[in-house]
Amino acid sequence: MNDFYILEKEDSESKARAGRLFLNGTEVLTPVFMPVGTQGTVKAMLHRSLTELGYKLILCNTYHLYLRPGLEVIKHFDGLHNFISWRNGILTDSGGYQVFSLQEMRKLTEEGVEFRSHIDGSSHFFTPEFVIEIQKVLGSDILMLLDECTSFPVDFPTAKKSMELTLRWAGRGKKHFEEFKSTIGKTQYLFGIVQGSIYKELRKICLSELLNIGFDGYAIGGLAVGEPEELMYQTTDFCTDHLPKDRPRYLMGVGTPENILNCIELGIDMFDCVLPTRNARNGQLFTTRGKINIRNAKYKFSKELIDEGLRNYVSQNFTLGYLRHLFLSQEILAIELATFQNLAFYNWLVTTAREKILEGKFRQWKNCVILNFKNNNN
Amino acid sequence: MNDFYILEKEDSESKARAGRLFLNGTEVLTPVFMPVGTQGTVKAMLHRSLTELGYKLILCNTYHLYLRPGLEVIKHFDGLHNFISWRNGILTDSGGYQVFSLQEMRKLTEEGVEFRSHIDGSSHFFTPEFVIEIQKVLGSDILMLLDECTSFPVDFPTAKKSMELTLRWAGRGKKHFEEFKSTIGKTQYLFGIVQGSIYKELRKICLSELLNIGFDGYAIGGLAVGEPEELMYQTTDFCTDHLPKDRPRYLMGVGTPENILNCIELGIDMFDCVLPTRNARNGQLFTTRGKINIRNAKYKFSKELIDEGLRNYVSQNFTLGYLRHLFLSQEILAIELATFQNLAFYNWLVTTAREKILEGKFRQWKNCVILNFKNNNN
Repeated sequence: MNDFYILEKEDSESKARAGRLFLNGTEVLTPVFMPVGTQGTVKAMLHRSLTELGYKLILCNTYHLYLRPGLEVIKHFDGLHNFISWRNGILTDSGGYQVFSLQEMRKLTEEGVEFRSHIDGSSHFFTPEFVIEIQKVLGSDILMLLDECTSFPVDFPTAKKSMELTLRWAGRGKKHFEEFKSTIGKTQYLFGIVQGSIYKELRKICLSELLNIGFDGYAIGGLAVGEPEELMYQTTDFCTDHLPKDRPRYLMGVGTPENILNCIELGIDMFDCVLPTRNARNGQLFTTRGKINIRNAKYKFSKELIDEGLRNYVSQNFTLGYLRHLFLSQEILAIELATFQNLAFYNWLVTTAREKILEGKFRQWKNCVILNFKNNNN
Repeated sequence: MNDFYILEKEDSESKARAGRLFLNGTEVLTPVFMPVGTQGTVKAMLHRSLTELGYKLILCNTYHLYLRPGLEVIKHFDGLHNFISWRNGILTDSGGYQVFSLQEMRKLTEEGVEFRSHIDGSSHFFTPEFVIEIQKVLGSDILMLLDECTSFPVDFPTAKKSMELTLRWAGRGKKHFEEFKSTIGKTQYLFGIVQGSIYKELRKICLSELLNIGFDGYAIGGLAVGEPEELMYQTTDFCTDHLPKDRPRYLMGVGTPENILNCIELGIDMFDCVLPTRNARNGQLFTTRGKINIRNAKYKFSKELIDEGLRNYVSQNFTLGYLRHLFLSQEILAIELATFQNLAFYNWLVTTAREKILEGKFRQWKNCVILNFKNNNN
């Protein structure tokens, strides 16, 4: 038992779960999708629009916020929530993913990782301890450990070595999390990250060691980095088989609507991905009747609502014809409306999944949704 | 008497007026500021945010909408209101200003003006009759005549010749307005445009002839085109002296908060300007405590609210420090928040002016606001 996560129901036909997270007064229903707010804003969304759509937990990026506006500023504001005026939950990543994916100029040692800022080229050093301190200053509700995220493909010895470093960093991070006094008057929760690429043997070791150290929740990292979907599903399936039921499971960086439904089925509770927001900016809509490329000439005269299947201001109020016009005219409102729609869809996806789990009809519903999505790509 | 405009009160100390416009079920209080929605969207603003701030009348550009999405599309949607899902009033300009200001490739004749599209270089021909037809298809509540807008400075003979052409076009436009049957089931109102640059003699002739033709309202054009402010005020003052009291007066393309207050004092009822929205995108805020350049380093740590003097979601909910961070990070939310703030301020300006006119305290209040604005530029 813990006061952070409650498992409400397990599906009888699959590993899908419905649960609740309690984050400093904010209750988050799971499965949950966390919109990505890299620099302290979910791109193009007013905070109140996020809240209106039902989002109570967003992801922010430690790497970006550490570099800009910097810790001095966020400390002065008593944390990220105050700085960005967001009243609900925030999960911050460790910054590791950005350091490893954005940076050519980095140097990895046992101690940590040295990198150069993408903004001004200045040199910085992240250790497992320091990224905990940063996130304590940010005042995130959920903190992530510094890990080394392997790319795909990676050979077994390299993956093993990397996973072992991640494990040693996990121990150091956890220790520092317990020792470092935060001035933020809230309860912060720490997640461990399972690495090991697609090798079950490595995932097994990593899982087992992380469980020994003990964390509030467990993330699965190192997936959605280019591997075939089948391997992502197999690895996720393997991990959730070995994760404790009384802790939330978070699959990092995933994914498409299909990915999310399949991984909910495999027992994942938490997701984050740039897909709905990034693709919105490129004119790709996710709707209850499938994907839509809004620039397509066939929508020029379309009086069809953006998404009749969703009840919210944007889906029900604007037509495809108008939205196409806004994209062709390069208007900012195009991005605002498309982002709103895509996040409305993603929240519909996970909240409906939750309802169906509670009703015992998850699998049947999931298969219909995925079929419908496959048959309707416009 | 007419059912389009009611003059409610005239200020005893100045020519300021409070009134009401009635546009197909939408009541618009004057003085009014109309945000510019060039391509069928007030840049970066959700429609509901405009409504929430109190805006019931926006300006859209005939030139842009005629070129994209084109009349075929808007006709298919039964007008611009439906196409853009805007429930309140729309004024459209005639397109003349864009033809004369955006286009190098144009050819002016007695018949009309030929120009090339800024989008694809295609050739088009606007006549006084055709721009009426376009606006009838758009279904605008208020239509503007095609006029020739002179630049500044312009010599007397050129200004005279131009004004005379504008007058001949006004006669043709009015005739066509009455004859051309619209399929839009609403009452449309037509405004004449007074030209004549800074020459009172020309303005006088133009005014007198336009009044003979007879319009629902009168716009003052050819100002805010680079002339000294004093000449803009003098010309406006002269025009309003000769305009009928029972018709609304619209000063086109004006202006700064100071300009607007001074011209309300001179008897203007309607304004439009890109300033609040364009400057928002450049990081200049208009607030009740003065102008703010939000990129200024002095706001890095500022916990000050964007504008404590205004009651709305954005002004009261976000800090200068956060907004500065959003601008430096080139986030879309920066533009959304700044635009929201500036339009909140502009609506506050004209609605408060109206209140003060009704209370008989306009002049005193206006002087305070302008003084305050002069002393607080940050």
